[in-house]
Amino acid sequence: MNYFSSDFKLGILGGGQLGKMLLSETRKFDIQTYVLDPSDDAPCKIACNKFFKGDITDFDTVYNFGKQVNVLTFEIELVNIDALEKLEREGIKVFPSPKTLRGIQNKGIQKEFYINNKIPTAEYEKFSALTALKEKVENNQIQLPFVWKCTEFGYDGNGVKIIRNYADLESLPNVECIAEEMIPFKNEIAVIVCRNASGEIRTYPVVEMEFHPEANQVEYVICPARIDEKVAEKARAIALNVSIKFDHVGLLAVEMFQTQDDQIIVNEVAPRPHNSGHYSIEASYTSQFENHLRAILNLPLGDTQSKLAGIMVNLSGEEGFTGNVVYENLEQILSWSGVTPHIYGKKETRPFRKMGHVTIVHKDLNEARILAEKVKNTIRVISSKPKLNPFKL
Amino acid sequence: MNYFSSDFKLGILGGGQLGKMLLSETRKFDIQTYVLDPSDDAPCKIACNKFFKGDITDFDTVYNFGKQVNVLTFEIELVNIDALEKLEREGIKVFPSPKTLRGIQNKGIQKEFYINNKIPTAEYEKFSALTALKEKVENNQIQLPFVWKCTEFGYDGNGVKIIRNYADLESLPNVECIAEEMIPFKNEIAVIVCRNASGEIRTYPVVEMEFHPEANQVEYVICPARIDEKVAEKARAIALNVSIKFDHVGLLAVEMFQTQDDQIIVNEVAPRPHNSGHYSIEASYTSQFENHLRAILNLPLGDTQSKLAGIMVNLSGEEGFTGNVVYENLEQILSWSGVTPHIYGKKETRPFRKMGHVTIVHKDLNEARILAEKVKNTIRVISSKPKLNPFKL
Repeated sequence: MNYFSSDFKLGILGGGQLGKMLLSETRKFDIQTYVLDPSDDAPCKIACNKFFKGDITDFDTVYNFGKQVNVLTFEIELVNIDALEKLEREGIKVFPSPKTLRGIQNKGIQKEFYINNKIPTAEYEKFSALTALKEKVENNQIQLPFVWKCTEFGYDGNGVKIIRNYADLESLPNVECIAEEMIPFKNEIAVIVCRNASGEIRTYPVVEMEFHPEANQVEYVICPARIDEKVAEKARAIALNVSIKFDHVGLLAVEMFQTQDDQIIVNEVAPRPHNSGHYSIEASYTSQFENHLRAILNLPLGDTQSKLAGIMVNLSGEEGFTGNVVYENLEQILSWSGVTPHIYGKKETRPFRKMGHVTIVHKDLNEARILAEKVKNTIRVISSKPKLNPFKL
Repeated sequence: MNYFSSDFKLGILGGGQLGKMLLSETRKFDIQTYVLDPSDDAPCKIACNKFFKGDITDFDTVYNFGKQVNVLTFEIELVNIDALEKLEREGIKVFPSPKTLRGIQNKGIQKEFYINNKIPTAEYEKFSALTALKEKVENNQIQLPFVWKCTEFGYDGNGVKIIRNYADLESLPNVECIAEEMIPFKNEIAVIVCRNASGEIRTYPVVEMEFHPEANQVEYVICPARIDEKVAEKARAIALNVSIKFDHVGLLAVEMFQTQDDQIIVNEVAPRPHNSGHYSIEASYTSQFENHLRAILNLPLGDTQSKLAGIMVNLSGEEGFTGNVVYENLEQILSWSGVTPHIYGKKETRPFRKMGHVTIVHKDLNEARILAEKVKNTIRVISSKPKLNPFKL
């Protein structure tokens, strides 16, 4: 197939920042793209060849969009799988496949998959509704604390909660859910696997999520992870196995825990480019976005090794600010060597909204870490406020 | 000024591959862009916020376009300077400035500038028309061989010719021109200088153009140049001086000769991102395109050092092929580590048309050079030809 400067069309469901960074690669290779997203302000609206406004969870919308392209992919899991299945039956190539996505989209099914395939994962129990779980907790039939996860429609930390007592359950929606054993982990790590339709498969190095000591929020994604080489090898082997067992084509981000006794436990996966791989744009020989593209087009995969150590800091909207975004002190961080901000292009900030990220690269990982902290403490994502005229109050 | 996700608008005159690669950076920073280009098929047509079709050499077209933006730049020198001057007088920021461009656009004026500023350059003589030059040659008043250059509208090798005898002058246009001493150089090298409006200034490392031993065509741009460190230092110092003397803001590519006795002679300059800096996308901490953007917006400049050795190979249309482009063996070169093709997005190939480039990065420059030759000998830019049916001849 001739993809380059040709009539070939790649369809992308979802037009957010992941799609935007993927478009950067399709532009580099001059591959035509169609994007479907519900928002007129989608970051992907420019840089694709054709933008379609529509609901990516609606059967007809996804089906009609998909019929116009040669290969279809998605930048978010919450898409209409029935439409993807029909498209696949009618000869449209869909990667990752709807079958793979079925095994991932619902977290209950995902957990069963790990058990069936002997992939190490935390103990869990599934409940058809919250009421059933509440009953168990009331009757002390489940050990506290545990992790509650709704099986569907969770995203970006929504749909996950640590339950320490009964009261923590009160505000949760009454939907299908799982209660998962809480793993007292030493490190949270991730491995991105890429695999093309021919079965060529590669893993990126293990990355480490460094948490804020008090806030319990991921502050830095660090590549390579500062863990023992043998543990890293084990994590990469498990991630490879997960990708193969899912028969996954494209990029698969495998999030894992390193336990206190150096066991590796799979937490969950995302079948697409992932926040934990953003560092790769500057630090790797081949970025995760380029390799996702190569994988779904069945091109040879690119080198997943790093040129330099890389650290990623998310730019999230600060609490207390809503409205037109302002990146305070952005100019200051631009003056530091090896620092690259990525601004996603969302006009409005909201507390915790992902507005961008910053990559820090350096030959020395420790130096990169020092610089990353400086970046984190310098830049702020706030909103512009009209200046009040004190005489007009 | 708040450039990021704001109402600020950057205008770009010209929508070719240099503009396209610049847009990749404006997207990363979410800076709004307007592009003016005469062609509906311009590589920049997508990925800018607004595309305007029009003649960049026409006064009214450039003026009306420029009135809509806050900062105006160009990706090609052949633009209407009168319009730029009027826009600048009316408060639009134009970088590089029309004054600087005046000193560069006409090669006669550019040569005078070097002489006036004691910048080492080849001896030359200027002629108001070809007829005057012919007379001198006929009367043996000028030493052969020499280099003929038309002073205006030359581009990409057009408008430059080595004159070895009178017959070589026959086919040339009767326009203003210069006759320049031919420098028997050891190396052709280049240095990209970036400078912002505040006067912050940096140079990229010296790159070397390696020529085909017989065809006398540049085959590889190699960074860093394989030359003596002292000579490289001298070249960077001269390039810095040229940028300062021109009071240049933005990127300035300074092409130079290293003579047999290691003198540095300035050949010519280009006031924009340049072919000799394409390697920087993959090899440098900050690409030339990002630094051009930083410079014209008066942001702090990025680190110009390299992460790895880089070599660039141009992808030009092969002789004998015209029509819909096909990149033969592109998949094969994708399978090699550190190899990144850039496809500019021109649908039709023609002999020698610049269709793309390939960057090769490696820790070891010699290994990169071996790989670059493999790339050069593998990929071919040809056209698709309908298969002839032998029974229908």
